Order: sequence, then C-alpha cells, then structure tokens
Amino acid sequence: MTDNALTTKTPLTLLGAGAMGTALARTWLAAGHPVTVWNRTPARAEALAAEGATVAASAAAAVAANRLVIACLLDDASVGEALGTADLQDRDLVNLTTGTPGQGRERAAWAQGRGARFLDGGIMGTPPMIEAPDSGAYVFYSGSAGLFEEHRATLAVPAATTYVGADPGFAALHDVALLSAMDGMFAGITHAFALIHSEDIAPKDFAQLLAEWLTAMTFMVHKAADQVASGDYAKDVVSNLAMQSAANATLLSTAEEQGVSTELLTPYADLMARRVADGHGDEDITGVLELLVQEKKS
Amino acid sequence: MTDNALTTKTPLTLLGAGAMGTALARTWLAAGHPVTVWNRTPARAEALAAEGATVAASAAAAVAANRLVIACLLDDASVGEALGTADLQDRDLVNLTTGTPGQGRERAAWAQGRGARFLDGGIMGTPPMIEAPDSGAYVFYSGSAGLFEEHRATLAVPAATTYVGADPGFAALHDVALLSAMDGMFAGITHAFALIHSEDIAPKDFAQLLAEWLTAMTFMVHKAADQVASGDYAKDVVSNLAMQSAANATLLSTAEEQGVSTELLTPYADLMARRVADGHGDEDITGVLELLVQEKKS
Repeated sequence: MTDNALTTKTPLTLLGAGAMGTALARTWLAAGHPVTVWNRTPARAEALAAEGATVAASAAAAVAANRLVIACLLDDASVGEALGTADLQDRDLVNLTTGTPGQGRERAAWAQGRGARFLDGGIMGTPPMIEAPDSGAYVFYSGSAGLFEEHRATLAVPAATTYVGADPGFAALHDVALLSAMDGMFAGITHAFALIHSEDIAPKDFAQLLAEWLTAMTFMVHKAADQVASGDYAKDVVSNLAMQSAANATLLSTAEEQGVSTELLTPYADLMARRVADGHGDEDITGVLELLVQEKKS
Repeated sequence: MTDNALTTKTPLTLLGAGAMGTALARTWLAAGHPVTVWNRTPARAEALAAEGATVAASAAAAVAANRLVIACLLDDASVGEALGTADLQDRDLVNLTTGTPGQGRERAAWAQGRGARFLDGGIMGTPPMIEAPDSGAYVFYSGSAGLFEEHRATLAVPAATTYVGADPGFAALHDVALLSAMDGMFAGITHAFALIHSEDIAPKDFAQLLAEWLTAMTFMVHKAADQVASGDYAKDVVSNLAMQSAANATLLSTAEEQGVSTELLTPYADLMARRVADGHGDEDITGVLELLVQEKKS
C-alpha cells in the first residue's frame, strides 16, 4: 500500500457495465475515484457518464487510460474478447468476472504472458448488496499479492476483501465452494417448505424454527473441517453414519406421505447407504466426501 | 398445569432405555421425578436402576405404574408391540419414538381408541444434548393440548418444548422438515469440502468462511416463507431463477475440474432448469417447490 492510495484516489478502468459492474462503478465514483468505463453495448456505460465516469470508445482505450483495470464481464470468454487487442504491459488486471478456478489460472498465465500482474476475484454478494453499506458483501481475491497489497484500499471500496492465496484459482474455488454449499442448503429449505405446503402451518412461524435450526446446525462445518484435516472421520462422532443412514427411511417416507418428490433427498441418502455398505457405518457423515472425490483418486 | 406438578414431581413411566431413553430418564431422575422404566432387553433398564429408577418386569406393568407414559422406542412398530397387552385406559401417552406424520396420526387414533390421551413428540437433538444443560435441544409436540398443558413442566425437564398443533402428525412433520433441510445443508457442506480437499487450503480457515456464509444465507428461509405464504414467487426477487440457473454451469464445471462428483448438485440444478423451461425464469428460486409438490396436485 502506498500513502498515495490514501490521499489521492487511484484512477481505475472498469470493463463491463452490467448490473454488477454498474454497482461497483457507483461505489468508486461515490468515493472519489476517477473511473474510465467501457461496455460492449455503449448505453450502460453512458448511464455511468452521467454519474461522473469517463466513457472509453474501446476496451483497448479504456485499458490504456489507467494502470488499474477491473474486468466484470459476462464470462471468461468475454474477457478474452474484450482484451484481445489491448496492451496489458505493466497493467494491474483484476478479474471480477465469474468463472471456474481453471479459468482463473489460465487467465492469470495469459495476462502475465502479456506483461500484466493478475488478481482474480469472486464476489460474494449481489449488486444491491454492493451498493448498500454494511450489507456483508465481500470479495475473495487470489493471485498477485503485490497487486492486492498495492490496491487494497481501492479494492475495499465496493466490498470487504478476503485474500485467499497466490493461486489465481483460489478466489473462484472459494466462491464456488460457498455457493455450492448454499445451493445444498437452499435445496433443503425448498424441500422443507414443500413438506408443509399442503398443511395448516403458517410459513412464517415455520421459517423462524427452520432458520434457528439451520443456524445452530452450522456447527457441523467446524466438525467436518476437523475430521477432514485429521483424516479421521470417526473423530467426535455422536450419531454415526449407520444411524443417520437408517434415519433417512423416515425422511423419504414422510416425503411420500406428503406428496413431495424425493429427488432432492435421494443423492445424499444414496451416498450414505453406499458408505455404510463400504464398512464405514461407525464413522461420521463427513466420510461420504470420500465417495465424491474418488474419481480424482482412481 | 397443576400446582402439584410444581411441588411434588410427577411420577412417570419410560418405555425404552436406548441411548435417547437413557438420556431422558437421567434428566427426570436428576430432577427428582420417580421413574419406572421398561426396556425389551433388561440390561439397559437395570443400569438406570442404579441411578434410582424402578425397573418394571413388563411394558404392561410399567404402564400400570403411572398415568404419564413416555415411549422412546426403536420405531413405531415397536410401540405397537410393547403396548399390545397394556391397559391404556386413562393413560397420558407421550410418544417420542421417531416416525412419520402418518404414523403419528395413526398411533394417536389407536391410543385414543384404547382410552388414552396422546401426544406425539419429535426430539431435535442428540442424547448428549439432552443430558447437557442449555444445549439448545428441544422437542416438537403435537396432539392433545390438554395432555401437553397438564404435563408441561415435566416435559420441559429434558429439553425445551415447542407445541405445534392438535394434529398429531405435526410434531413428526416439523421434525422431518427440519432434518431434511439440515441434510441438504450437510450435503452442500460435504460437496464444498470435497472441492477444496485436494488443494492447499486449511479446512479450519475455510470452515470459518463457510459457516459465516451459510449463517448469513439463512435469510433465504424468511424470504421463501414470504413467497410461499403469498403464492408470489416473483416477490422481492434480486437474482432471478434464470440467472441462478445459468450460474449452475460454473458450479458443475468447477466440480468436474476439481475431480468431484456432481451427484449432489444435479437434482437441484435440474429442477431450476425445468422451472425456467416452464417459463418461470423471472421468479425467485423458491418456485421450484411447485415441481416438488406436483405429484400431489395431479
């Protein structure tokens, strides 16, 4: 970090003025950063001009305008297209475009080969959260530690920052891992509401019970981490996998009684049953992880 | 509730001295309640005798000993077997045996036909939680409100109580709905750990990020409740289903890159894609509930 970043606001270029790019731009403009913006379809970039941004005629011109370049485009292919003719020598490229860890790693090598430092970012939040103060939104960053440290204050303007390592794939990996876990939780929530849907139960009352229960059950995250780190899935078992697998019969029967499809329940139940059949019924439920990663091992 | 329950401790009968029955018995014994216990295999009941319980020679004798009878057996069939020859006239039968809502309803009718009041219970907690003070464990109760009110203080000894209605199936329904949602969350957690499993990422550090994220995302429970209650799945949409469905491509590709099976992700992703194909891409993700309950509607 330089003192400069704290006194004069670092100018930056933003590629992409979709919903997320626009939200990001507004926070930097509001904080006094000069922002040069480029968008493939000009109308959205021009909307930001009314709020103080400079509109560049091309992505290459936008990149030429500032050393710090933020890309927030549709997908990784769009990043390649937009930057195809741009001179990236001595640029600090921060890629907030959604992608896979592999895309982050390839894009980092590509950018470094063209003379740029590269930082990948995964945004944990929605555009309204980016624009709202104290929304809890934050961004995972990975890649060039030098770039991250130098622009830390600027990057912290739209959302809190969490640097997770030099591997440029780690930001996307953390992002996707958290979103995948959230999807599992949302699937479970949807199944739960489907179960009570046809009954005289107030969704609001049920929601209070469900939210408290799920919050309490997040203790399992820490327990799973301890078991994964030690490699001992039998560590601190309370209700072992054999018991939990047997209990699935009640969950499945209840879904059938209530006229609810079991399709969201069966994959996890099947994994539990397979793991028990493999002789691991005395371990904790975390052990089914071994069945998910077996492809990589073989 | 009678004053009697507060001054002299209500004597009770417990059928079943498995891990959960034993934990329950210990809390009542510690609180000064006379406990008569019966277990199919006598050894576990006798272990409780050393802690002050009276062991009955048969389930029928145990039921004859006290008006308040708690059953905590292996499954619903075991309840029918244990109580086959018992005289249930004027008994207050509280069934803490795990079962489906349908089993709760049938068992209630069966017990009432034999002259008993009936309350079904679903325990949200493990045996160690029952024995630990302030563990957060609680029991859903449904069925006879009279029974619940009269024995409220006694029932509150092992764990907090939450009465959810006169329908004797509602305790099991709430229990199973919360467990099903938890299973979804645990499945998501397992997938997330599988994704980082082969990388140089400390599980403990990752767990902190994941637990905070999941806790923050429980806001979706309240949002889903509001959408379900109003029947308007487009209410307060931020990231619509079409966008969320499209984002699944990154989740699935990342799993493949990391050598992790997609089997826990695909059912929910498929539901989202089907719901978008049905023309509901502008709604929130909660709308996939309609695909889960369609069997009952048709």
